[in-house]
This record gives sequence, structure tokens and C-alpha cells, in this order.
Amino acid sequence: MSRCEPDTNWWEREDLTYLDGRLHLSGQCLEHLARSAGEPVFVYSARRAASNLGRLRECLGGLPQSTKVLYAMKANRFLPLLSELRRLGVDGVDVCSPDEVLRARQVGFREDQISFTGTSVSDADLEVLARHPGVWINCDSLSSLRRLGQRCPGRKIGLRINPRAGVGYRQNDQLRYSGELPTKFGIYRDRFEEALEVAARHDLQIAGLHLHAGCGYLDDQLENYRKVLIATLPFLERMPNLEHLNLGGGLGIPLVQGDAPLDLAAWTGVVADVLGGLQASIWIEPGDYLVKDTGILVLEVNTVEEKDGCRFIGVNGGFNLHIEPAFYRLPLHPVPCRFPTGSPSEAPVPAQVVGNINEALDILHGHAILPGLREGDYLAFLNAGGYGSSMSSNHCMRGRFNEYLVV
Amino acid sequence: MSRCEPDTNWWEREDLTYLDGRLHLSGQCLEHLARSAGEPVFVYSARRAASNLGRLRECLGGLPQSTKVLYAMKANRFLPLLSELRRLGVDGVDVCSPDEVLRARQVGFREDQISFTGTSVSDADLEVLARHPGVWINCDSLSSLRRLGQRCPGRKIGLRINPRAGVGYRQNDQLRYSGELPTKFGIYRDRFEEALEVAARHDLQIAGLHLHAGCGYLDDQLENYRKVLIATLPFLERMPNLEHLNLGGGLGIPLVQGDAPLDLAAWTGVVADVLGGLQASIWIEPGDYLVKDTGILVLEVNTVEEKDGCRFIGVNGGFNLHIEPAFYRLPLHPVPCRFPTGSPSEAPVPAQVVGNINEALDILHGHAILPGLREGDYLAFLNAGGYGSSMSSNHCMRGRFNEYLVV
Repeated sequence: MSRCEPDTNWWEREDLTYLDGRLHLSGQCLEHLARSAGEPVFVYSARRAASNLGRLRECLGGLPQSTKVLYAMKANRFLPLLSELRRLGVDGVDVCSPDEVLRARQVGFREDQISFTGTSVSDADLEVLARHPGVWINCDSLSSLRRLGQRCPGRKIGLRINPRAGVGYRQNDQLRYSGELPTKFGIYRDRFEEALEVAARHDLQIAGLHLHAGCGYLDDQLENYRKVLIATLPFLERMPNLEHLNLGGGLGIPLVQGDAPLDLAAWTGVVADVLGGLQASIWIEPGDYLVKDTGILVLEVNTVEEKDGCRFIGVNGGFNLHIEPAFYRLPLHPVPCRFPTGSPSEAPVPAQVVGNINEALDILHGHAILPGLREGDYLAFLNAGGYGSSMSSNHCMRGRFNEYLVV
Repeated sequence: MSRCEPDTNWWEREDLTYLDGRLHLSGQCLEHLARSAGEPVFVYSARRAASNLGRLRECLGGLPQSTKVLYAMKANRFLPLLSELRRLGVDGVDVCSPDEVLRARQVGFREDQISFTGTSVSDADLEVLARHPGVWINCDSLSSLRRLGQRCPGRKIGLRINPRAGVGYRQNDQLRYSGELPTKFGIYRDRFEEALEVAARHDLQIAGLHLHAGCGYLDDQLENYRKVLIATLPFLERMPNLEHLNLGGGLGIPLVQGDAPLDLAAWTGVVADVLGGLQASIWIEPGDYLVKDTGILVLEVNTVEEKDGCRFIGVNGGFNLHIEPAFYRLPLHPVPCRFPTGSPSEAPVPAQVVGNINEALDILHGHAILPGLREGDYLAFLNAGGYGSSMSSNHCMRGRFNEYLVV
């Protein structure tokens, strides 16, 4: 097999490239997988997950503190992928619901490898957590702190704080978890002392702090990220015996041509600048950073048609399979599974890539530039490994798909 | 039992009101249902569905043509609700996927009561339709027309057209299905003749036309609606032997205080004005109009807390159970299941109602005015009967809920 040259695609990489004219992920032909399944498929590369984790680990090794990498399961909970991440040596998982606790246990994570950070946590949630005494819990409200204390006096836990500063995607600033406007997340500075009192009253030991600044940040957000960390210092000064500080997730990856990968050394540089003197260990909770670019959604083109002067490419899946373009306005970049031959009939043209859901918002990509696709061809949507299958619905009863881990 | 007075709530109605201080839907106490289920519940009123259908029928009776009401299943496919609508005498269902065809059959609809209008229709979809020769099919592209013709020569079908004019929600103009910008839906005027040729070539008989102008329209959109119908006339003139014209759905209902119910007489007045001379019968495909206000989503308040000066009401469900507020920016109005006593501690205050999903967008209502709720109280979200459960996901593994039809 020969690699197609010239390698002009910004997104190609060692485990994602054209071989003999067909797009392969980790050596598997994506068109073949989708054609044999006969329905939409998500395909994940174990090799890429390993490389993402390795890169993170190497960089974190430069920090003076010990570190832990907890995979944020909400990004993707496909069991074989969870198993693979455990095998690859993630230190644990970040979960946000009781069922995610159970799922982490299902694939072999120990209780002490599970960190729970929920919001609007119910008494029923707390009952499940009480039955898992080894699971780490971060309370994000005084309410849950009080109710947890009633059930589990003496437990060692963490507090999710809100530093009132945030970072986020360039594409969508609604995805900020902490910032100038009040959000539901975490305990703000103005009630932090009260939270510590509630904890003390219930004999809860606060040994960890957690914050999540936002998601999808790249280098241009690092100065904002520094501000987030600086805003965390007043909380840290109050906690001289802290065992760990959990910085949450949010590390971004390139989504469009021109995006540079996050400079991890610059990122840990900011962390070291602000938190270099911290005695506690540092935990992080990457979700997308570990799995987003491992995953490709492969859909079959069933309709190629000009409508009102615009080319529409219709595929056998819709926004219910991957809601990021429609819901979050985050791009899901489509590329052909068959390498264009270069013939005039295959010259790239502007097209809207649309799904099979009867809704106006069901547009997978509104401004794609694609070679002359034919009905029966397959399209691969890049960076589909996070918040795709995990958020999918059966809207219009078009919810069927399959998932593959390629190793 | 006594009705609470004074009746000051804009949304109260005969089958949705407080009895003995508790909110009841069709005689069922909503708090009791949710408490006994122990998880989020959607509750639907069969009585309200009957009244919605009756109102539509009465008004359609004023048109000179015969009419059919087809329920748009994508709004809500809860089986008992589908059975009830069949029992109430809807003429059939509007479906958009093969699995919806099967579901309609499951509850007893005959093939000739099913109308399929899909988009990005695959060959696999067409195979299922070919096995249901009695199902009505509207093709929305030349591509599907050609591929259907290859499989089912001689079949009598319809064409979905795009009149290039639309109507929509005041709250969100992205929900337009036809308008000035090209959409994936339907066959535009510029390719209509070509579509008729493709049909003729495959011996397909075009006996119906279908259009869908948008969704959620109320009286202030009726003049736009008139323009949509006028834009349909050139298509109709070309089809002297048409058997039916399907006007799609989109009839809106009041979502916020001050919204007046759609004036059905005014709506049919517009239809009669433009289409009074049409010989073909008229079909419509209401989804939300039949079921949206039949349904209430009931969630338990588990967190009441001031954060950064803002009151947050946390509940045991999130945007994954009902995505309309977060995704479509359509209001899901929350009201207390327990009638406020009027004591000072229960004075209404501004609050953000937030769910249990770890995402910044998980806000069920950002600007609610609610009485002093306590943890353990229940909130009823009105007009939750459409596009709630049908679009729900298991994001964060918080997807569990139950549904009830009250009769």
C-alpha cells in the first residue's frame, strides 16, 4: 500500500490517512467498516488515544507536583474505549452521575480511581455515592455538601469552586463554565467560608479543590487561563493542607484548518508560573483532548442535488447522531473516504452537507468544500470522538449507529 | 376538592389546574406521579389531545374541500399517546423514517393511514417503503424520486415542494423550513418540471403535493402564511388532476404569557382565500398543535441556592430530557406543583432553573419568577409534550425518565 502524495490535508496524520485511495484510521478502511455495518458508524483509534495520553503525561511530568489524568467520561462512554483508556494507564475517570460511577466500575476502574463532580445533585444521587465509599466526591453547592454530610460524616471530599473567570471556544462563548455572569457551577468566593463551616459541622474533610474553566481552549486563551488560575489563589491560600487541586478539563484541539495544536509546554508553563509553589498534587480531567480526534463518524452519501442554486449533499445520519454543529456551532469537518482522483468532475465545490432529520437545523456542515461526490460515496466527519455518540438521540427514530474501536 | 382562586395564571385551563393546592393534569396530581416514579416524568393529557383535535376538525370543516389530519409522529412517539390519537380519530400519521412507519403500524394504523415525507432518503429507507405498498410517499428530491421509481414503478406518490417562502417562531427564525435561503427541503420551482419528467419516466403518478412552511406560527405570521400559499399556486396550476395538497404542520400554540392562541378561523380563512377553488382535498400534519400542551415535564427540586447573587433552582433533569430551551431557545415555562400559600417566604423571586448536566448550556429557564421553592418541591414545565422525550438523550447517563398518559 502506498501513501497518497502530496499530503496536502491539514488534518492527515500517521494513523489517519489515505491508503490505496481510501481513508484509513489506524489501518482500517473507514468506507469498508461503514459499508459492512450498513448504518452510520463511529470509529475510534486506540493508537491516537495512546498518543494523546502520552503527550499529556510527558508534559505534566515537567510540573514540580505529582499529577493525575482522569478521563472525563461524559465525552464518550463507549465501553471498549473506556477499557482501552484504563489499559493505557489513565489514572482514573471523571464522572458526573451515579450511572457513570457504575459504568466506570464495569470496565474495571477501582472506586479510588473515580472522581465524581456533579451539579444539581439529588438525594438519590447521594445514596448511590454513599454506597461507593472509595469514590472521590467534589461538592459544587452548599446544598449538596450539607446533604452529603448528613449521609457520610467523616468522608474526605473536595469542593468545586468557581473562580469567576473562564476560557472557552472561539466558536461559541456560551460554553463558559465560569466567567463574569453567575453560573450554576461551583462555590463562589463569597460563600466559600460558609461552605467550609458546613463541611466542618458535618465532619467532612475538605482535602481537594476542583475548578473547570471552560472547554476547547487553545493557545490564544492561555492568558485568560492564567487569570483563571490567579483567581484560584485566594481559595488555595485558605487551604494550606490541600491534598490535590483538580484543574478540570477543557484542553482544546484543532477543529479547522489554521488551528494550531495547543502548546502543552506553554500550558504547563502557565500552570507552573501560577501554581509552582503549590504543595498539593494536580489532577486534570481531559475528555475531548483524549478522545475527540480519535473518532470519525462515517456516513453514506445518499443524495447529491442542486436546490435553488445550492449543492446539497444528503447523508444517512443527522444532527441527532452528532449534535455539535447544530447545537454548539462547533465544526465537524467532512472529508471524502475516497481520495479524489483529480479529474475535472471531482473538482472541489462548495456544498451544504445535510442529514436525514426533518428539521431545518439538521445541517452537518453549511460551508463545506468537497470534491464531486456521488451517491453511494462515504464521508468521514473528523473529530467526532467526543460528545457525539454520548449525546445522541433517537429523534425521528433515526438514532441507529454502530461504534468500533480499532486497535 | 376546590379550585384555587383567584385564577391568575395565564396557562391554567380546565384539565390543568390546582386542586387542593396541588397541580393536577386531567385529575392526576403531578407531584404524586413524579414522587412515586422517583425519576423525571412526562405526563400527557388524553383529554387535552382530544380537545386540540376537536378544535382543528371543527375549523377544517369550514373549508370547501375534504380534509385529513395526520399526526406528525416526530413530535412525540410515546406508544400510549399514539394509540390514543388513533382512537380519537386522527386520519393517520405523518412519518419521516422507516422505523416511524413500523411504529405507526404497531399501534394499529393501516398502511393507507401513513404518509411518509423524508429527507436525505437512503436506498435502505426506500427498501422498507417498497415493502409497505400502501404507505403514501412524498419525495423531496429528484434523487429519491429516481431511486423510488426504480423500485416501485407505477406507484402513486406525492412531491414535496419548496415555495421559497416560510413562517416560523418569533423566538427563533432558524426554524424556517422554506424561505429566502436555500434549504434541503423539497423541490423548488426551478426543477419542478424536471421532477415531473423523472416521475413520468418511471411511471410514477404524482397525485399529491406537500409543503411545510415552518413551525410555531401564530396569528402574527398569518400574512406570511398567505404568501407561502400564494407561492404554491404556480405548482398547483401545473397539476390540474391533483388529489390532495398537504400543507404540513407548524400551527403554533401560546408558549409565554401574552401569546394568544392561534385563531384557527383566521387560519382557515387564509387557506380558503387562496385555495378556495382547489379541487383536491387538503391534508395537514400537526405535531406540536396536537400534543405540545398535552404534556408536562415534572422535575424535583434538589438544590435551592444563591450563587454570586443569583438564585439557582437545581432540578433532577437536564437539557437532555427536553432540549427546546437550550437548543431552540423556546421557553419551557416552569410552575410550582404546590400552589404558593401567599406567605412572605413564598413571594415570587427571579431564579435560574438549571438541570443536572455538567454543561454551561444546561439552563431550563434563565429568567423564571418563582415562589420560594424548597428542596424536595416539584416543578412542572408546561408545553413539554412535543420534542421532549422524542429528542431526549442519555448524555452524562442522566437520561432516565418515565411517561404517563392520563385519560
